[in-house]
Amino acid sequence: MFITFEGIGGCGKSTQSKKVVEYLRKIGHEVFHTREPGGSPGAEEIRRLILEGDGNRWSAETEILLFNAARRDHLERLVWPAQKSGKIVISDRFVDSTRVYQGVARADLRGLVDELHTLVINYEADLTLVIDIDVKTAMERMSLRSGEQDRFDEMGMKFQQDLRDGYLSLGKEFPERCIIVDGLGPQDEVFSRVKAVVMKRLGT
Amino acid sequence: MFITFEGIGGCGKSTQSKKVVEYLRKIGHEVFHTREPGGSPGAEEIRRLILEGDGNRWSAETEILLFNAARRDHLERLVWPAQKSGKIVISDRFVDSTRVYQGVARADLRGLVDELHTLVINYEADLTLVIDIDVKTAMERMSLRSGEQDRFDEMGMKFQQDLRDGYLSLGKEFPERCIIVDGLGPQDEVFSRVKAVVMKRLGT
Repeated sequence: MFITFEGIGGCGKSTQSKKVVEYLRKIGHEVFHTREPGGSPGAEEIRRLILEGDGNRWSAETEILLFNAARRDHLERLVWPAQKSGKIVISDRFVDSTRVYQGVARADLRGLVDELHTLVINYEADLTLVIDIDVKTAMERMSLRSGEQDRFDEMGMKFQQDLRDGYLSLGKEFPERCIIVDGLGPQDEVFSRVKAVVMKRLGT
Repeated sequence: MFITFEGIGGCGKSTQSKKVVEYLRKIGHEVFHTREPGGSPGAEEIRRLILEGDGNRWSAETEILLFNAARRDHLERLVWPAQKSGKIVISDRFVDSTRVYQGVARADLRGLVDELHTLVINYEADLTLVIDIDVKTAMERMSLRSGEQDRFDEMGMKFQQDLRDGYLSLGKEFPERCIIVDGLGPQDEVFSRVKAVVMKRLGT
């Protein structure tokens, strides 16, 4: 079982994925928790190349290639071996982030994202939880985290709104896999919604 | 006009490309001289990721993605603008290196190299000079250059021989574009062969 968490910066996906990991471990599952871009040592180095520097550092095309290189390394070195050993794998972000972030930056590139994914990755999550909150709340939360913003978080309100819309569209494009979860409210309330989705999919 | 120089490490391609650049400038051409992987600042950073570290640092698939990311950045930032401004562009290495190096490491990946190239680069040299010498001479020359070997140069004689064979096959696959030039002998003798090929193609 490969579960991914998605959503705009500040939506609470890392907090929620951590809670799911803790909960699944408590009830006896072996879980490997990871994140993208990054995860494996090589992918973390590529992550630094992607996320540091100014907004125009890479063209959208180059960026998509770097994300795929990091993803491939991460899958080979960590995700696939963990699955092979019987663990549930949970990742903060996966290919849907590339679909949404690069697709928003340049709508004409969504085709390239999908073709490249099919060519070099060809692997999809079993379940994706999109933690959805309004952009204003997300940006307020992000402004409280000092030093954690990357260059995508700094691209302004309109960009964040487009990202949110992109994620909501994904929910319609992949209704079986992508579940939109309301991310507003206290963490524990959101977690009870998240847990319900995960446990239903685990069949327990 | 986009001219690339190819060949195994130690074949003399950098020496010869430098001589061609000097000669073309002397007779009045504007020339932009560059190299792969690298060239542009972003691509140079990716180059460091690719070439440093041990031989198993990246899988062949990840490596191909990183080479394509570096190539895309290099083309966008330097090669295409130089061509637009009317310059002849000369590059030490281009996609043929990926075809040969990654195709030798994993023959089943040559298809991936070509599909990825078509998808994200889709650009080919007008003329490619493959400087061909025997592996023993190449390795002797490389051993004299301290600190310049990268991890491909350290993969042993059999690997270098396969690379050489790979380059010779490219000459058959792309007979119009890829010209094999005998790289043995004094630099000036080799250069007179190289110059003849370049000047013929330039139509002068």
